[in-house]
Amino acid sequence: MTGDISQETALKIAELQVKLDRKLGPEFISQRPGPGGGPKLTYAEGWKIINLANEVFGFNGWSSSIVSLTVDYMDFNEQSQRCNVGVTAIVRVTLRDGVSHEDIGYGSIENTRSKGMALDKCKKEAVTDGLKRALRNFGNLLGNCLYDKSYTAEVVKMKVPAVSLFAYRASGPETHPGSIVA
Amino acid sequence: MTGDISQETALKIAELQVKLDRKLGPEFISQRPGPGGGPKLTYAEGWKIINLANEVFGFNGWSSSIVSLTVDYMDFNEQSQRCNVGVTAIVRVTLRDGVSHEDIGYGSIENTRSKGMALDKCKKEAVTDGLKRALRNFGNLLGNCLYDKSYTAEVVKMKVPAVSLFAYRASGPETHPGSIVA
Amino acid sequence: MTGDISQETALKIAELQVKLDRKLGPEFISQRPGPGGGPKLTYAEGWKIINLANEVFGFNGWSSSIVSLTVDYMDFNEQSQRCNVGVTAIVRVTLRDGVSHEDIGYGSIENTRSKGMALDKCKKEAVTDGLKRALRNFGNLLGNCLYDKSYTAEVVKMKVPAVSLFAYRASGPETHPGSIVA
Amino acid sequence: MTGDISQETALKIAELQVKLDRKLGPEFISQRPGPGGGPKLTYAEGWKIINLANEVFGFNGWSSSIVSLTVDYMDFNEQSQRCNVGVTAIVRVTLRDGVSHEDIGYGSIENTRSKGMALDKCKKEAVTDGLKRALRNFGNLLGNCLYDKSYTAEVVKMKVPAVSLFAYRASGPETHPGSIVA
Amino acid sequence: MTGDISQETALKIAELQVKLDRKLGPEFISQRPGPGGGPKLTYAEGWKIINLANEVFGFNGWSSSIVSLTVDYMDFNEQSQRCNVGVTAIVRVTLRDGVSHEDIGYGSIENTRSKGMALDKCKKEAVTDGLKRALRNFGNLLGNCLYDKSYTAEVVKMKVPAVSLFAYRASGPETHPGSIVA
Amino acid sequence: MTGDISQETALKIAELQVKLDRKLGPEFISQRPGPGGGPKLTYAEGWKIINLANEVFGFNGWSSSIVSLTVDYMDFNEQSQRCNVGVTAIVRVTLRDGVSHEDIGYGSIENTRSKGMALDKCKKEAVTDGLKRALRNFGNLLGNCLYDKSYTAEVVKMKVPAVSLFAYRASGPETHPGSIVA
Amino acid sequence: MTGDISQETALKIAELQVKLDRKLGPEFISQRPGPGGGPKLTYAEGWKIINLANEVFGFNGWSSSIVSLTVDYMDFNEQSQRCNVGVTAIVRVTLRDGVSHEDIGYGSIENTRSKGMALDKCKKEAVTDGLKRALRNFGNLLGNCLYDKSYTAEVVKMKVPAVSLFAYRASGPETHPGSIVA
Amino acid sequence: MTGDISQETALKIAELQVKLDRKLGPEFISQRPGPGGGPKLTYAEGWKIINLANEVFGFNGWSSSIVSLTVDYMDFNEQSQRCNVGVTAIVRVTLRDGVSHEDIGYGSIENTRSKGMALDKCKKEAVTDGLKRALRNFGNLLGNCLYDKSYTAEVVKMKVPAVSLFAYRASGPETHPGSIVA
Amino acid sequence: MTGDISQETALKIAELQVKLDRKLGPEFISQRPGPGGGPKLTYAEGWKIINLANEVFGFNGWSSSIVSLTVDYMDFNEQSQRCNVGVTAIVRVTLRDGVSHEDIGYGSIENTRSKGMALDKCKKEAVTDGLKRALRNFGNLLGNCLYDKSYTAEVVKMKVPAVSLFAYRASGPETHPGSIVA
Amino acid sequence: MTGDISQETALKIAELQVKLDRKLGPEFISQRPGPGGGPKLTYAEGWKIINLANEVFGFNGWSSSIVSLTVDYMDFNEQSQRCNVGVTAIVRVTLRDGVSHEDIGYGSIENTRSKGMALDKCKKEAVTDGLKRALRNFGNLLGNCLYDKSYTAEVVKMKVPAVSLFAYRASGPETHPGSIVA
Amino acid sequence: MTGDISQETALKIAELQVKLDRKLGPEFISQRPGPGGGPKLTYAEGWKIINLANEVFGFNGWSSSIVSLTVDYMDFNEQSQRCNVGVTAIVRVTLRDGVSHEDIGYGSIENTRSKGMALDKCKKEAVTDGLKRALRNFGNLLGNCLYDKSYTAEVVKMKVPAVSLFAYRASGPETHPGSIVA
Repeated sequence: MTGDISQETALKIAELQVKLDRKLGPEFISQRPGPGGGPKLTYAEGWKIINLANEVFGFNGWSSSIVSLTVDYMDFNEQSQRCNVGVTAIVRVTLRDGVSHEDIGYGSIENTRSKGMALDKCKKEAVTDGLKRALRNFGNLLGNCLYDKSYTAEVVKMKVPAVSLFAYRASGPETHPGSIVA
Repeated sequence: MTGDISQETALKIAELQVKLDRKLGPEFISQRPGPGGGPKLTYAEGWKIINLANEVFGFNGWSSSIVSLTVDYMDFNEQSQRCNVGVTAIVRVTLRDGVSHEDIGYGSIENTRSKGMALDKCKKEAVTDGLKRALRNFGNLLGNCLYDKSYTAEVVKMKVPAVSLFAYRASGPETHPGSIVA
Repeated sequence: MTGDISQETALKIAELQVKLDRKLGPEFISQRPGPGGGPKLTYAEGWKIINLANEVFGFNGWSSSIVSLTVDYMDFNEQSQRCNVGVTAIVRVTLRDGVSHEDIGYGSIENTRSKGMALDKCKKEAVTDGLKRALRNFGNLLGNCLYDKSYTAEVVKMKVPAVSLFAYRASGPETHPGSIVA
Repeated sequence: MTGDISQETALKIAELQVKLDRKLGPEFISQRPGPGGGPKLTYAEGWKIINLANEVFGFNGWSSSIVSLTVDYMDFNEQSQRCNVGVTAIVRVTLRDGVSHEDIGYGSIENTRSKGMALDKCKKEAVTDGLKRALRNFGNLLGNCLYDKSYTAEVVKMKVPAVSLFAYRASGPETHPGSIVA
Repeated sequence: MTGDISQETALKIAELQVKLDRKLGPEFISQRPGPGGGPKLTYAEGWKIINLANEVFGFNGWSSSIVSLTVDYMDFNEQSQRCNVGVTAIVRVTLRDGVSHEDIGYGSIENTRSKGMALDKCKKEAVTDGLKRALRNFGNLLGNCLYDKSYTAEVVKMKVPAVSLFAYRASGPETHPGSIVA
Repeated sequence: MTGDISQETALKIAELQVKLDRKLGPEFISQRPGPGGGPKLTYAEGWKIINLANEVFGFNGWSSSIVSLTVDYMDFNEQSQRCNVGVTAIVRVTLRDGVSHEDIGYGSIENTRSKGMALDKCKKEAVTDGLKRALRNFGNLLGNCLYDKSYTAEVVKMKVPAVSLFAYRASGPETHPGSIVA
Repeated sequence: MTGDISQETALKIAELQVKLDRKLGPEFISQRPGPGGGPKLTYAEGWKIINLANEVFGFNGWSSSIVSLTVDYMDFNEQSQRCNVGVTAIVRVTLRDGVSHEDIGYGSIENTRSKGMALDKCKKEAVTDGLKRALRNFGNLLGNCLYDKSYTAEVVKMKVPAVSLFAYRASGPETHPGSIVA
Repeated sequence: MTGDISQETALKIAELQVKLDRKLGPEFISQRPGPGGGPKLTYAEGWKIINLANEVFGFNGWSSSIVSLTVDYMDFNEQSQRCNVGVTAIVRVTLRDGVSHEDIGYGSIENTRSKGMALDKCKKEAVTDGLKRALRNFGNLLGNCLYDKSYTAEVVKMKVPAVSLFAYRASGPETHPGSIVA
Repeated sequence: MTGDISQETALKIAELQVKLDRKLGPEFISQRPGPGGGPKLTYAEGWKIINLANEVFGFNGWSSSIVSLTVDYMDFNEQSQRCNVGVTAIVRVTLRDGVSHEDIGYGSIENTRSKGMALDKCKKEAVTDGLKRALRNFGNLLGNCLYDKSYTAEVVKMKVPAVSLFAYRASGPETHPGSIVA
Repeated sequence: MTGDISQETALKIAELQVKLDRKLGPEFISQRPGPGGGPKLTYAEGWKIINLANEVFGFNGWSSSIVSLTVDYMDFNEQSQRCNVGVTAIVRVTLRDGVSHEDIGYGSIENTRSKGMALDKCKKEAVTDGLKRALRNFGNLLGNCLYDKSYTAEVVKMKVPAVSLFAYRASGPETHPGSIVA
Repeated sequence: MTGDISQETALKIAELQVKLDRKLGPEFISQRPGPGGGPKLTYAEGWKIINLANEVFGFNGWSSSIVSLTVDYMDFNEQSQRCNVGVTAIVRVTLRDGVSHEDIGYGSIENTRSKGMALDKCKKEAVTDGLKRALRNFGNLLGNCLYDKSYTAEVVKMKVPAVSLFAYRASGPETHPGSIVA
């Protein structure tokens, strides 16, 4: 299987494996009300998962593509002049060496007044959702731990550490990173 | 057949074979009521199987893809204003050296009020179910043992050991893994 | 034909041939009532055949794919509110060196109340059935002996030996295989 | 034509040719009533031909694929509530060096009560029939002799020798072949 | 054209050419009544031509494939409850070095009671007929001489020599060819 | 153009060119009544042209394929219960070095009682006709001389020499060619 | 352009060019009445052009293929029970080094009683016409000179020389070319 | 994973990673009213992100393509003579070494009088939006930080530094960059 | 651009360029009445341009193909029993080194009595027209000068020199070119 | 990323980058009234951008292609006898090393009397617009600066320098560039 | 970008660039009335641009192809018996090293009596127009300068120099270029 790689490469892979096995700390976790007043849903925001993917694989270490994007239904209610929309995306994430995972994401909305806003929101939601589900196949760090209900029950009780904001890019061709702390 | 590999590689493959031959311990096993009040169904949650696949093959050792995703039916009952949905997924899992298995997964729901929620749930359920069935072809450890009714009858009676939660990732660019125990 | 392989490889192939020529012992054989109260059907459960394939070819020695999956009919009886479903799968099994067999599997059910359950069951049944029929082309051990009625008549009379359950995987990153005996 | 192979390979091919030229002995021959009370049909069961193909070419020496599978008709008689089904399969058998034969198989049934059972039986029958017809192109041993009416008239009168059943596989990871004789 | 082959190969090809130039002796010739009470048709049975192809080219020297298989018509007569069927097959025969011939075969039947039996017979007849016509392009021995009416007029008057049946395969893994003479 | 071949090959090609430039002697020529009582048509039978192609190019020197086969019309006259059929075939003949010609053949029949017989005859006629027209592009010997009316007017007056039938193949594995003279 | 060929090849090409620049002598020219009683049409018969192509390029120096064959119309006049047919062929002629020309041919007929005869004639006429037009692109000798009206006006007045018929092929495997002079 | 690159290349990649990790300073941030009078939306203008992509990857370091462009709806209200339009674009951004991201963009407008202006605006908006979303997958600098609501809440309060306009190109073939400061 | 060719080749190309830059002398120019009694049209006949192409590029120096051939309209006037036809051809001319030009040709006719004659004429006209327009892209000599109205106004006033007809091919295998002068 | 290029190449790329970073001087900027009497639109004419692309990349340094060209609507108002047309083009610009950008362009017109003129104008407008938008992705110089409203507000106030017209090509084969100054 | 070419090649490219940067002198410029009595249109005739392309790139230095050719409308006015036609062509011009540009051309006509003449003219006009627009992307000399209105305003006032007509080709195989001066 992995007999044709150098020891150095094997070590790097092992390091990455350790990183990916770690679960997400509380500062990566969000909660929102469940549908129909049900229990809270625990999730990680898309931009956090993207940042983690860039941290683990590097910005030139992973690709993503939209395998398909389908509007399942767009129902317009003549009486209420509102519409419901549901969109499915299949997203593929591929690492540099060709390993890949595909998964689906879903975006839906009810009772919107504007078709455009509904489709805009649902399509982006579906793609980001699919991206997150595809990434979670690589391990706990990229979201698989969120499906472990006993872990999420614990982690949401933990204290979120103070965030040190990353450096930001100042204007102009010379780039001296500024720094702000919240 | 396997005459063109080094002894080192042959050893690694043999080790993996031993791992895959092991059956799932009780902490990997879940149960839920059978359909129509029938006997309990024994299964393993998707995130556990994904973690096991990453442990055995490594995060860069296996790929998954959605070969097809089909909504078999989406029946709306005008009277009850509820709908039934059934979705089939065919999922392929491929190892680095090209060996692969395809299998099908199914997701269905009855009497839901929201088409979006129904499709969202059924599609994800079908893909995860298909992923699990495709992985189980690699051996007991990835789920084949769950089809052996005499084993599952025994294992559900066993005591689940205390879980030592994996390390989690702390915030910030420096990563000192924290640790929690339930 | 086989003039371009080393002696070592030729020996391995010969060993595999001997294994595959062996028929299935009684512990691999199951029976179920025939359709319409007819004579008992003799068969091997899918998970047993998968385990045997992994034993003979190794987990990285064989691939399976679903060439096609077709719902032949889905008849709903308005009066009884029940439906009948029939599904055909064509499954291909491929060894590492490219040799392959395709065969068909079938899944059907009558008088079910739930379309979802019916399709779920029939599709999985068809795929597993097709996998078994494709594998049996490799010889007696993978199921071809089950078509020899004089053999099955004898083997079902034989005493099933005590099963020594395989090792199972304990929880946690360190893996010390436990062991249970039924 | 065959000028680019070693003497050793040429010898092996010649041996195989001799094997394939042999006709089937009486223990490979079966008979069943002809359609409409006509003369008996002489044939060989599918599993016997598969075993012979594995014996001659080796388990990794031949592949089979289903080129097409077509339901020609599925007629339901409203009055009798019975249906007739006819299925055509085209099957290809390929040897390791690329030589191949395609032929057709047929499966049909009349007056069945269950569509599922009818399709299940006819499709499998058609595939196995096509496999046998494709294999018979390789010579007498794989079934071509069955089309020689003067031979089959003689061979069905011969005494079938006592069958020594092949070794079977005992349970467990250690495999000591058992042996039974009918 | 043929400037790039060794002398040895050129000799083998010349030998094959001599074999193929020979016409079929009387024991390969059959006759059946012509359609509509017309003159007898002279032909060779399919299995004999297949055996000759294996003798000349070797079992691994030629391939056959079904380029197309078409049911031209399937007419059901409501009054007589009988049906007529006509089927066309295009068959390709390819030698190891890529040389190939395609030709068509036809199978038809009138006034059958069973659609299944009609299609079964016509399809197999068409494929075998096409195989024979494709093979006859290689020369007299594989059937081209049968189209020479002055030859067939002579050969059917010749005495058929006594047939020495080929060796047949005895049962069991050890193969001592038996021998029978009609 | 031809600057990259050895002198030996150039000589062989020149010899073949001389052979192909020769016109057909009277024993290769047939005549049949023209349509509508018109002047006789002069032609060569298909099997003779096939034998000549094998003589010139060798059995492994040329390939033929059916590029298309089309039923142009199949008109059934309700009153007379007879049908007319017309079939077009496009046939390609290819030499070993890739040179090829395509041409069309036609088969038609009027007032037949049996659709099957009509299609059978017309399709085979069309393919053989197309084969002959494709081959005639290679020169006089393979039929081009038949389009020269001044030549055919002379040749049909010539005396046909006595035919020495080719050797034929005797039965059994040992092949001692017999010989007959008409 | 032509900088990568040997001097020998360049000379051969120059010779061919000289040959192709020559116009057709009177014995290659035919005339037929123009449509609607118009002026005579001057043309060369297909077989002559084919013979010239074989003489210039050699039998293995050029290929022809039917790019398309289309029945433009097939109009049946109910009153007269006659039909009109028009057919277009696009034909490609390719030399060994890949140079090729495509051109169209046309075949039409009016007031025929038999559809089959009409299609047969028109299709063959169209293909031969297209072959001639494609070949004429190579120069005067292969027909381009026929489009020069001032030349054809002169050449049809010239005396046709006595034809010395080519050698023809005598029967039997030994080939001593006979010779006839008209 | 990254074991096959030189140290120099590894350093460059690390530098780029650092750049991409920086968040956008306040001069890159814009705000506009949210839909329906909701809270302000924070975003970066397309031309700024394109300039940043060129700065980080170089003008010859990244490609963009429009995977699909779909008009979801174009509704015309007969009464108001106005139309609503919604357009989806899927955009792919690819780096030189093949790494790529796909994402969707949306453009919509309501109550426009001119179809042309509506489609023009929506299509360009959708493509630019998709380009921005695809680029943000590469990290904070290319827009991922804009999805972090706690960061955008802070950064919009910061003071925008004075912009030093880039050099501009003067006319004529000699290019002496001018310079202006706002 | 052209840095990778020998000096010899460069010289040949330069010579060809000089040839192609020359305009057509008066003997290549024809005139016909313009449509609707308008001014005369100046053109070159197709066979002359083909001869020039063969002179410049050599018979094996250029290819032509019909990219498409479309009947734009075929209008039949019931009253006059006449029809109008218009045909478009797209023709590609390719030189040996791959350089090519595509252009369109048109053929039309009005008030013909015969569909066949109309299609025949229009299709050939369109293909020849397209061939000429494609060739003219190579320069003045192959027709581009005909679009320069000031040149054609001059050249049609020039005296046509006496034509020395090319050599023609005498009959028989020995080819002594004859010669005629008009 | 860019580790595999010579220092010389790296320098050239850096120079190009500097050029592309420069913004457009005032002589490249045009203004036209905005739609509906709105604020002026600032843009650069297509020919200027094409000249700049040729200056930066060289005439053989960039390619452009029309990925798609779609007429979105062509509405004809029966009353006013005028039509509105809207056209979308997707244009791709590719540099020699494969880097490319795709973007869309739009062309529309209202109340035209001539469909032809409308389509002519809109299609060309759309293609040129798309070309400009695709090119602007390469940086400020090729148009990205035009989207920076603060810059365009400044630059339109600047004085346009005197234009020195480029050299022009004099007639005849000898080319002495003339020169004019406005 | 251009780091892999010899200095010699670089020089040639630079020379070509200089040529292409030159604008068209007055003798290349034509004018025609604008549509609807509007201002004059300034353009260059197609044959002049083709000659320039051959001069700059050489006859074997550029290719052209018709990517698509579409009849947008063909409207027939029953009352006036006249028709309007509009045709779009997309044309691609490719240089030897693969660089290419695609652009569109348009041809339209109003109130013609003959469909054939209309389609003939429009299609050719569209293709030539497209060819010119594709070529102008290579720089001023091939037409880009015509889009600079300030330049065309000047150049049309300049005096057209006396034209020295190119050499023309005299008849016969020996080619002594004649010369005429207007």
